[in-house]
Amino acid sequence: GRKVLIVYAHQEPKSLNGSLKSVAVEELGKQGCSVTVSDLYAMQFEPRATRNDIVGCLLNSEQFNYGVEAREAYKRGNLSDDLIEEQKKVQEADLLIFQFPLYWFSMPAIMKGWMDRVLVEGFAHKFPDCYDSGLLKDKLALFSFTTGGSREMYAQGGISGDIRYLLWPMQHGIMHYCGVKVLAPHICFAPEYVSEEKRKEMLLAWAQRLKTLWKEEPVNCSPEWYFK
Amino acid sequence: GRKVLIVYAHQEPKSLNGSLKSVAVEELGKQGCSVTVSDLYAMQFEPRATRNDIVGCLLNSEQFNYGVEAREAYKRGNLSDDLIEEQKKVQEADLLIFQFPLYWFSMPAIMKGWMDRVLVEGFAHKFPDCYDSGLLKDKLALFSFTTGGSREMYAQGGISGDIRYLLWPMQHGIMHYCGVKVLAPHICFAPEYVSEEKRKEMLLAWAQRLKTLWKEEPVNCSPEWYFK
Repeated sequence: GRKVLIVYAHQEPKSLNGSLKSVAVEELGKQGCSVTVSDLYAMQFEPRATRNDIVGCLLNSEQFNYGVEAREAYKRGNLSDDLIEEQKKVQEADLLIFQFPLYWFSMPAIMKGWMDRVLVEGFAHKFPDCYDSGLLKDKLALFSFTTGGSREMYAQGGISGDIRYLLWPMQHGIMHYCGVKVLAPHICFAPEYVSEEKRKEMLLAWAQRLKTLWKEEPVNCSPEWYFK
Repeated sequence: GRKVLIVYAHQEPKSLNGSLKSVAVEELGKQGCSVTVSDLYAMQFEPRATRNDIVGCLLNSEQFNYGVEAREAYKRGNLSDDLIEEQKKVQEADLLIFQFPLYWFSMPAIMKGWMDRVLVEGFAHKFPDCYDSGLLKDKLALFSFTTGGSREMYAQGGISGDIRYLLWPMQHGIMHYCGVKVLAPHICFAPEYVSEEKRKEMLLAWAQRLKTLWKEEPVNCSPEWYFK
């Protein structure tokens, strides 16, 4: 069976994001997948990239360089336990699902911190092994999120601009850089402003999509897809 | 004299980011500006948006909704002290400078958390008072950052795509949404891979730009500027 890691960032289990996460756990479980969830708020996941991420001595304690120190600590097996744990989950996964409410055209800080701290050089990429030859190639990722703004605001020519514009840093800048192929994002627009019935339909639509997810082709992650 | 808030996110005072921050404090001080620095790592700024941001009772403790609770807490003056403090600094500032190393096509999580938690509805925006009529209109912002990748990688047609693509969520999605006008970003490309002399030139160029900063016109924050 395939392995899925769901990185989930919502404070409230009863939220739509919480339900979307549960629907994925259930539906993928039914398919025989083994599903792991990193529930970032429940874990009180640390988003700050600091010296605490390196166990023991630093290469250069006179002038702290996070990128360099994390890269060396990864090589020596000296990253902090929470990072080693997350990297193991990523390593084992065939598919990463990121489930979150859109905060300011991006992911919440707690999830950005997961990207900043877990996707260490040497583990996820190692120049020139980036983009198509990134170290996490053969994995898939899918960004599943809810928005505050409506579909119309995020349409081309809408006041917030095409929703694809804001996918670029997340899908291309992070996932593609690590070699991960991305499936089309799953977006629930403005769930706070629709009826309970409509929110139930959103959950059903997600369950439905997951049934045939493994047949999907990744999106063509080039500027044309984002900005045509 | 004008008031400037520098929101600064680097772990190491001796870094180029640290020096860029100091150059700005010094140069703007010479001009008679009053400069405040929020040194996020030194403050151990909390990036996670949680229930702890609201002092006292919640509107709905059965189902926690961060956006709603923060909005109501702002109205009642019940946000946590660290947020009230940052909002005061923003309110007083004519110009916000964000100084940081680019992490994954965006700002480090600690700074994203500043955006997530400080720019509360009612304080920074209040639909339909957003974009050109956002509540922080008449303020300016400037994103000043260093990159790992080279200028060539971030050129149009370069492997990482035009650097402007990744400015969209930060400049348009956050600042423009709050009504803040943005000045052209200040970007130091790949300082880790150049000589000490070249890094000194980068500091001089920043000081030089700051001398005439108040005469600059904001960029025209429309999709054409970003994606032409």
